[in-house]
Amino acid sequence: MTTTERTAGDEAAIRRRIESWSAALRAKDLEAVRAHWAPDLVEFGLAPGLEHRGEAVASGLASWFPTWSGPIGYELRDLAVVAGGDVAFVHALVRLSGEKTTGERPDVWFRSTVCFRKIDGEWMIAHEHASVPFYMDGSYRAAVDLRP
Amino acid sequence: MTTTERTAGDEAAIRRRIESWSAALRAKDLEAVRAHWAPDLVEFGLAPGLEHRGEAVASGLASWFPTWSGPIGYELRDLAVVAGGDVAFVHALVRLSGEKTTGERPDVWFRSTVCFRKIDGEWMIAHEHASVPFYMDGSYRAAVDLRP
Repeated sequence: MTTTERTAGDEAAIRRRIESWSAALRAKDLEAVRAHWAPDLVEFGLAPGLEHRGEAVASGLASWFPTWSGPIGYELRDLAVVAGGDVAFVHALVRLSGEKTTGERPDVWFRSTVCFRKIDGEWMIAHEHASVPFYMDGSYRAAVDLRP
Repeated sequence: MTTTERTAGDEAAIRRRIESWSAALRAKDLEAVRAHWAPDLVEFGLAPGLEHRGEAVASGLASWFPTWSGPIGYELRDLAVVAGGDVAFVHALVRLSGEKTTGERPDVWFRSTVCFRKIDGEWMIAHEHASVPFYMDGSYRAAVDLRP
């Protein structure tokens, strides 16, 4: 295999991993989500604190999933994949939507960066960073109303 | 060279790149900052919009630097570096501080993820993601008051 062929194969494998991971999030299937994580996952999430690691990410999801009455809308746009050797990163814009148990219907676009390490031949999520920017007008409001 | 030796060399090179890039930010030296960027840089920044690319990032910095009366405080904590082949990522918590021309003295911790591609033997910043989380209490306030 040439380097170009190997890279193309890695990029395709990572796109499949992102798709199966997103499907697990949509289905609120915690075990299926965790199956994509490296053991030392570090997450910079939408909600405080500054960072969460491993089990704290899992318990955050375990609390968050039941706040949705149906499946979670999780739609990726502009997915870019850069893979090399046994490290890769992807970035995308994500539309998060659906119905909460409160009846609210959030519809927010956020930025997602996901970084992978190849462990025993499988691309695993070692780091995830999800965010919206915030307004610099002194209000410190999170910019949850932006559209791509 | 073994793979372990190559990886250790890459990690050291990336730490030096992060240090020189941070020094350029502290000094508000736009050309020195840009010298660290890959041509196709995609930035998810603290300020709206959702994303900026290449020249838009440069013009954002060109407007932002003069809002500081002195050097910018830019202090990294918990820097983790993962390098493999010609792709790498790092994540850290960053303390941003200093004095604005308005007399304000911001002091904010944010999360930073920086992704690299090795181009012609040099580690270049291809993607940057900087953020704070936001409060999920209905206020949508950016969490600029968190401390690590």
